[in-house]
Amino acid sequence: MYPKTVQNLIEIFSKFPTIGPRTAARIVFYLMRAPEKEIQELLNSISSLKKKVKTCSFCFNPFEGEEKLCPICRDPSRDKNLICIVEKEVDLVALEKTKKYKGIYFILGGTVSKLRKEDIKKLRIKELEERIKNPKEFGIENSGFKEIIIATNFTTEGEATARYLEKILKPFEIKITRLGRGLPVGAELEYADEETIESALEERK
Amino acid sequence: MYPKTVQNLIEIFSKFPTIGPRTAARIVFYLMRAPEKEIQELLNSISSLKKKVKTCSFCFNPFEGEEKLCPICRDPSRDKNLICIVEKEVDLVALEKTKKYKGIYFILGGTVSKLRKEDIKKLRIKELEERIKNPKEFGIENSGFKEIIIATNFTTEGEATARYLEKILKPFEIKITRLGRGLPVGAELEYADEETIESALEERK
Repeated sequence: MYPKTVQNLIEIFSKFPTIGPRTAARIVFYLMRAPEKEIQELLNSISSLKKKVKTCSFCFNPFEGEEKLCPICRDPSRDKNLICIVEKEVDLVALEKTKKYKGIYFILGGTVSKLRKEDIKKLRIKELEERIKNPKEFGIENSGFKEIIIATNFTTEGEATARYLEKILKPFEIKITRLGRGLPVGAELEYADEETIESALEERK
Repeated sequence: MYPKTVQNLIEIFSKFPTIGPRTAARIVFYLMRAPEKEIQELLNSISSLKKKVKTCSFCFNPFEGEEKLCPICRDPSRDKNLICIVEKEVDLVALEKTKKYKGIYFILGGTVSKLRKEDIKKLRIKELEERIKNPKEFGIENSGFKEIIIATNFTTEGEATARYLEKILKPFEIKITRLGRGLPVGAELEYADEETIESALEERK
């Protein structure tokens, strides 16, 4: 129904998170009307994304720079014995906005709904275990982790992932905590207000 | 909070229709994880969009080809005396899918909520008037329009736009119609709003 180039681009945009085919179509028609300058800016920004932005060798937080570690992992004032596991980059940013958390992070890269092998493979489980076991190898100098905060979202998937993480982290014999129930059931960190996140951090147990 | 390149791209995606800053951030992180091949495909498709796809000189429907008119406007079996005004490209496609409409179209390019000058300027009002007045100049040979169907959506904005169109099209002394109102297929009276039931009653046959 649409011209081939349009249809092709609609299919690409439909793969983007939260974007369905209808929104994808609207985006394509928006781009068709957008001035050439805006299109060029978009193309340049996408191209430079993978060139300029890299992920931290320890926590997988994206950053720009020559270093191996992100600014958080490099920060000498952060407590390197405290690690917080989050699902996604946006969750890390949500926690950072509270300015209350002083440890380091680990970005898991998603959640699993059913604990099927192919789903779990998409998460950075092996990477997490390696970093808990031997942080120095990945650039973090500490005296051993004292506490692991599992800060997955309080969704069905987040809860299932948290239970799975608790199970695989148990052998390390490190104190494992979860964010306090200041967050309402079904809430996602990304959409929670700072105050709620702050109290959830304080109430962790 | 985010690296500069990431923040920049979030801002660009936030300008896309229906995309807020949060979805924009998720898209950027999705792209960061996407394989290089997928990124290249995206870049190529966006670049070729403006090169390969052009808009019909009469109705503004996007198409690929060397011609000036889109396949619908070129189709000798379509009734060139019947024109249907739609808000957006996706609405044209929705109507085409029914295979019931045999006239030609005009894509207005949006709607207005309040009839402010700066809003109206964004629509193709002048272009519409020119094409109604002198279709031949824009590649359409007909014996004069016999009917104009205003097919804007039944939203507040769509209704306001329809009323505005009716006003500016009145001097042409062409029959103006709107799409029938009523209950959608599969609708249950119990859940339909009063206004819809009311129009369904009025439109009964």
